[in-house]
Amino acid sequence: MYTVRSINKLIKEFSNLPGIGEKSAQRLAFFISRTSREYGSRLIEAIREVMQKVRYCSICGSPAETDPCPICQDKTRDKSIICVVEEPWDVFIFEKTGKFKGLYHILGGAISPTKGMSPQDINIGGLLRRINTHKTKEVILATDPNTDGQATALYIANLLKHRGIRVTRLGMGLPVGGDLEFADEDTLCHALNGRRAM
Amino acid sequence: MYTVRSINKLIKEFSNLPGIGEKSAQRLAFFISRTSREYGSRLIEAIREVMQKVRYCSICGSPAETDPCPICQDKTRDKSIICVVEEPWDVFIFEKTGKFKGLYHILGGAISPTKGMSPQDINIGGLLRRINTHKTKEVILATDPNTDGQATALYIANLLKHRGIRVTRLGMGLPVGGDLEFADEDTLCHALNGRRAM
Repeated sequence: MYTVRSINKLIKEFSNLPGIGEKSAQRLAFFISRTSREYGSRLIEAIREVMQKVRYCSICGSPAETDPCPICQDKTRDKSIICVVEEPWDVFIFEKTGKFKGLYHILGGAISPTKGMSPQDINIGGLLRRINTHKTKEVILATDPNTDGQATALYIANLLKHRGIRVTRLGMGLPVGGDLEFADEDTLCHALNGRRAM
Repeated sequence: MYTVRSINKLIKEFSNLPGIGEKSAQRLAFFISRTSREYGSRLIEAIREVMQKVRYCSICGSPAETDPCPICQDKTRDKSIICVVEEPWDVFIFEKTGKFKGLYHILGGAISPTKGMSPQDINIGGLLRRINTHKTKEVILATDPNTDGQATALYIANLLKHRGIRVTRLGMGLPVGGDLEFADEDTLCHALNGRRAM
C-alpha cells in the first residue's frame, strides 16, 4: 500500500490530541504538508513556548507563566472567596466575565464512577489545606452542571459542613438568549425553583 | 482580564488549522500545556519532518517524499489509466483498497461557483498535458459525489470528448453496509439507474 512515512507519523501524533479522530488527524497532516513555511514555524514555536513557559500554580492549579499565578499573587483580589472549578480553562471563562474578584481552585476533573474518578483523583486535599490555613469565608462550587459535576459539588459541600464557611453553588436555570422550547426538564425544574420576584 | 500570553498565542495558531474552531483550539492548547515533554517533542518533530520532506509530485500532484512520487515512478503500474481526484488524501483512500493499478491526477479542488473556484483554479491544464503526451486510454473521474464534484466531472468529460479516450465516472449508489431507509433520494435514483442483474 502506498503511504508517505512522514505524513503517517504526523497523523498518528495528531490522533493523540483530545477530540481529534483519525479523519481529522489526516486532514490536519495534509494541511501541514501544504502550509506555508511561516505558519508551520509559528505553530511549532507556539507549541514549544507553551511547553517551556506554562506551569501550574502550586496554590490554585491555574495555568500561568509564573508560580504562584498572577491571580494568587494579586493583592487586590478578595482572598476570602474561593471559586472551585473542574478544569484550568474554566478559570479563563470566569475571568472573561470580569465579575469575579476572588481566588480559584482547580480540581483537575470531577468525581465520576463511570470514568473511574474517585475523590482521591482530584485535588480536594489542596482545597481543604487552603481553607484550613486561610480565612476563607465562602466557597463557590462551580463544577459543571452535569451529573459528575453535581456529585462532586455535593461531596465537597458535605466535607465543608459545620466549618462556618458559606458554601454556594452556581445558579442553574435557563441560559440567557436560549429558547424555552429547547430547555430540558431538569433545567426547567432548576429555573422554576430558582425563580425570582420581578 | 487574566490570560496566559503563550497559551493565547497557541490558541490563535491552532485556530488556523482546518476544522479547528476556537473551542477546540482552546482545548488543544491546554492539553499541550499539560502534556509530557516526550509527546510534545514528538509532535513538534513530526510537524517539522512533514514540512521538510513532503513535496508534491510534479506529474500527478500526490504528496510524496520524492519527485516524481513512487506511484508515477512505479514501472509496474498501468500508465494508460488516470484516476482524477480532488484532493491529495483521495489517493490514499484509493491505495487502501489495493484495487487500482493505474496513475492518479490531483486537481487540488473542484469547480465551485459558491466557493469562487473556476476551472482555472484547479489543475485541469496539467491533466490535458499528460493526456496529450502519454498514451492515455481511460480517464476515471473520481471527483466527490456532490454538486461541485459532479460539475467538475462534467466539465472535464466535455473537454475530453472526441479524443478517443474512454471517460468514466465512479459508480454511484447505496453505500455498502448502509441502511436503505437512510438513503437520500438522489442516491436512491443513482442506485436504481445503476442496478445490475443478479
